[in-house]
Amino acid sequence: MVLEIIQGPSDVKKLAKEQRLTLANEIRSALLKKLSKQGGHFGPNFGFVEATIALHYVFDSPKDKIVFDVSHQCYPHKMLTGRKDAFLYEAHYHDVSGYTNPLESEHDHFTVGHTSTSISLACGLAKARDVKQGEGNVIAIIGDGSLSGGEALEGLNVAAELNSNIIIVVNDNDMSIAENHGGMYRNLKRLRDTNGSASCNLFKAMGLDYVFVDDGNDVEKLITVFQQVKDTNKPIVVHIVTEKGKGYQPAIENKEPWHYCAPFDIKTGASIIKTNIESYNDLTGKFLLEKMKQDTSIVAITAGTPTVMGFVEKLRNEAGNQFVDVGIAEETAVAMASGIAKNGGKPVFGVYSTFIQRSYDQISHDVCINQSAVTIPVFAGSIYGMRDVTHLGIYDIAMLSNIPNLVYLAPVSKEEYLAMLDWSIEQTQYPVAIRVPGGKMISTGKQVTKDFSQLNTYEIVEKGSKVAILGLGSFYPLAEKVKMMLQETLKIEATLINPQYITGIDEQVLTALKDNHDLVITLEDGILDGGFGEKITRFYGTSEMKVLNYGFKKEFLDRFDLNEVLLANRLKEELIVEDVKAIL
Amino acid sequence: MVLEIIQGPSDVKKLAKEQRLTLANEIRSALLKKLSKQGGHFGPNFGFVEATIALHYVFDSPKDKIVFDVSHQCYPHKMLTGRKDAFLYEAHYHDVSGYTNPLESEHDHFTVGHTSTSISLACGLAKARDVKQGEGNVIAIIGDGSLSGGEALEGLNVAAELNSNIIIVVNDNDMSIAENHGGMYRNLKRLRDTNGSASCNLFKAMGLDYVFVDDGNDVEKLITVFQQVKDTNKPIVVHIVTEKGKGYQPAIENKEPWHYCAPFDIKTGASIIKTNIESYNDLTGKFLLEKMKQDTSIVAITAGTPTVMGFVEKLRNEAGNQFVDVGIAEETAVAMASGIAKNGGKPVFGVYSTFIQRSYDQISHDVCINQSAVTIPVFAGSIYGMRDVTHLGIYDIAMLSNIPNLVYLAPVSKEEYLAMLDWSIEQTQYPVAIRVPGGKMISTGKQVTKDFSQLNTYEIVEKGSKVAILGLGSFYPLAEKVKMMLQETLKIEATLINPQYITGIDEQVLTALKDNHDLVITLEDGILDGGFGEKITRFYGTSEMKVLNYGFKKEFLDRFDLNEVLLANRLKEELIVEDVKAIL
Repeated sequence: MVLEIIQGPSDVKKLAKEQRLTLANEIRSALLKKLSKQGGHFGPNFGFVEATIALHYVFDSPKDKIVFDVSHQCYPHKMLTGRKDAFLYEAHYHDVSGYTNPLESEHDHFTVGHTSTSISLACGLAKARDVKQGEGNVIAIIGDGSLSGGEALEGLNVAAELNSNIIIVVNDNDMSIAENHGGMYRNLKRLRDTNGSASCNLFKAMGLDYVFVDDGNDVEKLITVFQQVKDTNKPIVVHIVTEKGKGYQPAIENKEPWHYCAPFDIKTGASIIKTNIESYNDLTGKFLLEKMKQDTSIVAITAGTPTVMGFVEKLRNEAGNQFVDVGIAEETAVAMASGIAKNGGKPVFGVYSTFIQRSYDQISHDVCINQSAVTIPVFAGSIYGMRDVTHLGIYDIAMLSNIPNLVYLAPVSKEEYLAMLDWSIEQTQYPVAIRVPGGKMISTGKQVTKDFSQLNTYEIVEKGSKVAILGLGSFYPLAEKVKMMLQETLKIEATLINPQYITGIDEQVLTALKDNHDLVITLEDGILDGGFGEKITRFYGTSEMKVLNYGFKKEFLDRFDLNEVLLANRLKEELIVEDVKAIL
Repeated sequence: MVLEIIQGPSDVKKLAKEQRLTLANEIRSALLKKLSKQGGHFGPNFGFVEATIALHYVFDSPKDKIVFDVSHQCYPHKMLTGRKDAFLYEAHYHDVSGYTNPLESEHDHFTVGHTSTSISLACGLAKARDVKQGEGNVIAIIGDGSLSGGEALEGLNVAAELNSNIIIVVNDNDMSIAENHGGMYRNLKRLRDTNGSASCNLFKAMGLDYVFVDDGNDVEKLITVFQQVKDTNKPIVVHIVTEKGKGYQPAIENKEPWHYCAPFDIKTGASIIKTNIESYNDLTGKFLLEKMKQDTSIVAITAGTPTVMGFVEKLRNEAGNQFVDVGIAEETAVAMASGIAKNGGKPVFGVYSTFIQRSYDQISHDVCINQSAVTIPVFAGSIYGMRDVTHLGIYDIAMLSNIPNLVYLAPVSKEEYLAMLDWSIEQTQYPVAIRVPGGKMISTGKQVTKDFSQLNTYEIVEKGSKVAILGLGSFYPLAEKVKMMLQETLKIEATLINPQYITGIDEQVLTALKDNHDLVITLEDGILDGGFGEKITRFYGTSEMKVLNYGFKKEFLDRFDLNEVLLANRLKEELIVEDVKAIL
């Protein structure tokens, strides 16, 4: 086995042509086995096997620095840079993260997981090299899907002015997560169709030199071109055409679902994890599609992740021109939503918590200053969401809830969520974001009829005394548990409140609590700094009321153990009751 | 006078060719007089006079919707849409804002002030029109300088897929605020040089149709082309070449300083406002340039606003390749800074508070997760900064200070600022932002020698009892006044603290205060929600300590009266002392 002898890039350089082909096959076999067992990014890695071998054959990492965009295509790179065991042996599968990680290897330069950053990061590496009169190539790897993101396009423009070595490998597999969207993709097609010779060329128009490789899954062709551009003293784009999912037929035939896979049966490609559990994603898609049929002014928007709102291909087709995928372009998604609202449409931009932070300025400047009635369901904004450091969902409350004019809602149940979503779409006064609950879906079976236009009106679920518990969104169930345990252990009949509104406080309710309560507890599924609880505490700042805020410490977590994190932050009913005892 | 009879666009349509020329001259005369008296955006408006006349002659606003990028070129538009008096008569100069404003006129569709948003906003207007099967043209106006911003480039890509009417007027005056930067500007030059006929064309590469107008200051030529593209059923770019500052020689000869002008003498162009006051901008530039001479690894970065860090043309030339202007591209500026730091350079990205919010994701994902030692001085982060709703500096604490790993510092004096700046540049552990003080510069004359690596260590300036006042950054002088008044009126010798650190609390100092203090007062020059004070209040949540947080209400303010806003938020020593009295 060739792969087993690869301790680092220098071993790749020793391989003969035949062995390089064998290595490619072995990498794919290892990937197939590992991904079938634990899931991960499938298509991007299968398509980039040959390019990775060629890169490490030609360039001298880490002196030459390779920066991966998103880095969801870095598994082969990890295998060739001392981390093969994490792909060959099941016991070591968890030794590495799914993204580049400088803590793992000197061949990784950044921890990344968001798209469109590689060119700009590489510009920085190159700039530092130049002012220090250092050496080495800087290579940015970016997929065609990531190119539509503003930061990537800015990066192309800036790279062109560096006037020194930077090599931008555009890995063009004619796919984003779903199909690509936007005018530039016609140009990429034209370049593919003309073997790179079309005179109108996006990269040249951005001021960059350009070479084209028709088969980016041909190691030898890539080696030839990489050797040509190595040590270039000018910024250059190497546009290579690869096949996403190459080497595994189901992934080639169904590129979108095979972008990222759950564990599956290698023979059939069928997912091993069967679930009939209703998700908020599918729920949202179905709900919106129904509404769209009644009302042509509803427009659902995604920035390259249509399934976050449940819009699988079938639903997209049914929605027709009422569904817009702007490609990876969160800034435009938000600004466009503002424009739609201002012209009488009803825009709904569904987005992951971790990606909403790519549009802070648009939410503030384009939407909130303009008081545009957009609806933004925020998914996976929860500790129960993704667990990679680049994809956490515990920062959105701090980010969104301090922007003026925005109404940020925290539903607890499915019924509450749908009622809020429906209200938001139909109203024309407020920009609204809705924090889709994390964790297990709660269904009460009871229709919610509240008029959410009465801003900042909390729901008192149970009236008690002494202690009041405000359980926000997905931490409401924890509030219920705390209440129960307070009753059992301290005989306290606590007041239980579902605040519903993250962005404002219910002064009337909070003031009334002063009458017969000594302690208010806030629970939120996000970091404490800049969060919901602090606003409550400030309200009581000069009163006799004591306040305990629960949530997460302001820190970055990576591939954490859920229970450990909950424990460390005392987010357990028994610990909270312990704290209450100590205070009362 | 033609301008005096223009009540709205319909009056423009009635004008004969001769009168249109007269109108252009009259608009420039009015602009010259008004701007000489009260300052404002000069170059952008003088260059866009003819285009504005042609737009209103051909299109039917407000049915046809014109969206201005930044909208700093909208003064002629305001004159032609019912607001001429605000430019003709000094008594009415303040009737209008310096940006488009839907509260003023149905011909303005958005309140904007940040760049690169117009195409994406226009995409939204067009999309809503289409799903509702409505009518009318949608026209986005964008300058060449704004094109380098990611949101604008995303917008071009998305617009191309709309498949219906959208007209993007690229107003190319070959300038940003300063000179343009980036590879795309070579393509724009090539297009200008070839009368738009070069086969490599950025806009066509983005999938858009394209027409070129060689003289964008020729009303008749523009009318002809606008008439051609009116009611197009495909997205199209109209690339017009204009002269920035046209009609006033000093502005043509010195385009950068005449982008925005203070009141000036019309005859000479000399500024009427003479100031010898040292600014933090100039101070920063001089300091950095000195350091750069000693250390080639220092790189100063700007995103199209070089003078925010005092880098006027002379300093830029002296800094050479150690100064980088990425153009309007804040995302790339931040990511590039991270790359520079990771490769051993010392990056300093100077930015206005209102524009740092264009790079939230890059600060979190590209910088803070990667613990890159970048230095970000944040200018005009203060109520004493700009007063237009789109340019306020009171939100950055809430935005930045809740991002993990970031160290956000609040200096009080010039000496403290320079010490922090120097420390930050030389250290390699932390991403650091520094909130450059607003208001009058304070100089103590005393060198600051503190090692700021000892994070979250507050400076106790005066030890007292009963009341402790934490005066953050530019509100430290207010803290001094409160202390003095507490002494005078209540005989309280308050403790005075300069916290210096916004992003973390000094638990030791805060705990010690419990011994002989009943009340802690926090003062911050930003909104209270998500701010500094709330963290202090949370710390004391379950103690006997009372806490009063002062800062601004979470709201958007526009062209406010400073004193009124301070009063409304009780940011006056006498009001604060009144509050203290009520509590103690």
